[in-house]
This record gives sequence, C-alpha cells and structure tokens, in this order.
Amino acid sequence: MASLSESEAWARFVAAPVAILATIDPGGRPQQVPIVFAVVDRVVVTAVDQKPKRSPRLARLANIEADPRVNLLVEHYSTDWDELWWVRVDGDARVVDRLDDHHLAALVSRYPPYRDNRPSGAGIVIRPSRCVGWSAT
Amino acid sequence: MASLSESEAWARFVAAPVAILATIDPGGRPQQVPIVFAVVDRVVVTAVDQKPKRSPRLARLANIEADPRVNLLVEHYSTDWDELWWVRVDGDARVVDRLDDHHLAALVSRYPPYRDNRPSGAGIVIRPSRCVGWSAT
Repeated sequence: MASLSESEAWARFVAAPVAILATIDPGGRPQQVPIVFAVVDRVVVTAVDQKPKRSPRLARLANIEADPRVNLLVEHYSTDWDELWWVRVDGDARVVDRLDDHHLAALVSRYPPYRDNRPSGAGIVIRPSRCVGWSAT
Repeated sequence: MASLSESEAWARFVAAPVAILATIDPGGRPQQVPIVFAVVDRVVVTAVDQKPKRSPRLARLANIEADPRVNLLVEHYSTDWDELWWVRVDGDARVVDRLDDHHLAALVSRYPPYRDNRPSGAGIVIRPSRCVGWSAT
C-alpha cells in the first residue's frame, strides 16, 4: 500500500456514492453506519431518514451530540488486490434540525431517489480536519 | 429499512469479502480501516500485513491493545436503494503475534492472493458479542 496525496484522497472521497460514518456511543464503543452524502464547500452533509424515534439509526445523532469526533471511510474492494484503495477522513460533526437549502439541494441532485422523497428531517454536518488515503498501487 | 434476523445478518456478514473495522485511538477518536477476514468457530480473524513499524496500518493494533472494543461493518450499496443492506457486529478484539494455523488456513483458503504471500505477522482475533443488520426491503 502507498499513501495517496491529500488532494487525490479527497477527490476520491468526494466522488464516492457511500461512506461509512463511525461515531462513539455513550459507553465509548465505536459504532458504524453507511451514509449517503454530499460535499459542499469542503463540508460533508448527510440527511437522517424520517423514522420513528425508536429507530436505532438515530443512535448516531445522540452519539454526535455527546462526542462530535467522527471518522468517515470510503473504500474500494476488488478480488484483484492491486486495485484496493481507501480514504479516511477525520472530522467534527454537528447535528442540525434541518439541513440548509443548498445542502439539501446538493443531496437531492446527487441521489435520484431523493427527488421523489426529499429529506426533511435532521441532518449531520461534518467539518473535515484530516484526509488520508492508501492505494495498493 | 427493516431489521434482519440475527441469523440472516450473521450469514451476510460471514459471506462478505471485506469489512470495515472501527477502533478507538488513544485520544478517543474513532478510526476505521477495511479488512479482509475469515470467520472460524464464530470468531473473526484478520491478518496484519508485514509492514515497517512506521506504517499507520499498525495504529489499529495499538488501539486494540488500549481498548479492545471494536465494531465491524459490512454493507451493500446500490443506486437502487431497494437493494441497500448493512450488518454491524460489536466485538472484543485481541492482538496476537501470530495467528493459529487453522485461522491462517481459513484466510488463505478464502483469499487467493494469500496463497503466494502467506500472512506471517500479527493478527487480530475478534469475539463478536452482538450482530444486527438492516435491509431496505
């Protein structure tokens, strides 16, 4: 594995359709969930589905409110290990009751399923502090 | 999203070629890295590449030695959101200087690239404590 330049790592992150968000639960255990996202002005935004409050998907919001430090991972797997790469982004997250219109527009524009089912609930806004990436070749 | 039964979630986890391992770094920040793995007797095993000690890939070992609590995630993304699913496994990890022969054999049997380049260094053995999964349909 060789490290990618920060600009190359960031470009691969921004282009990925899905990332894994890691937060810390109140007991200090890491918790992961896949997210769809958009990058707007170097900030990562993601919406939270409209779900009953019991949904475990909302655990990520409580985690972030208790500890804003998050990690985002994008990875490419292949049976040809020469094609493996991954990018990891550290950041600080905050929960918003509603995403800004231009953040919502970026998500809707990126993901066709959002066109008929526009996110209307809470969102997460992540300010990246570090981006590193590795590639097999 | 609907929850998968634990047996269905575990079956999907076991069959996946790659998982994301989340650990906690000494400062309390989550850190993620993709891993290849095998499941042997309900234990998850993964090898660590032979790398110079400076390699950031070894951060996961120091993290586990300081805090054994880890999370593993397997996910399937598709532009058709009806096909989305993911599985999350909580576990406790320990670092071993060398994997047991039957753990190594499971990895080599699962991943052809390991046949010519057999892992010979440290490994991680994870005992799962909880497995949950979600599917869009």
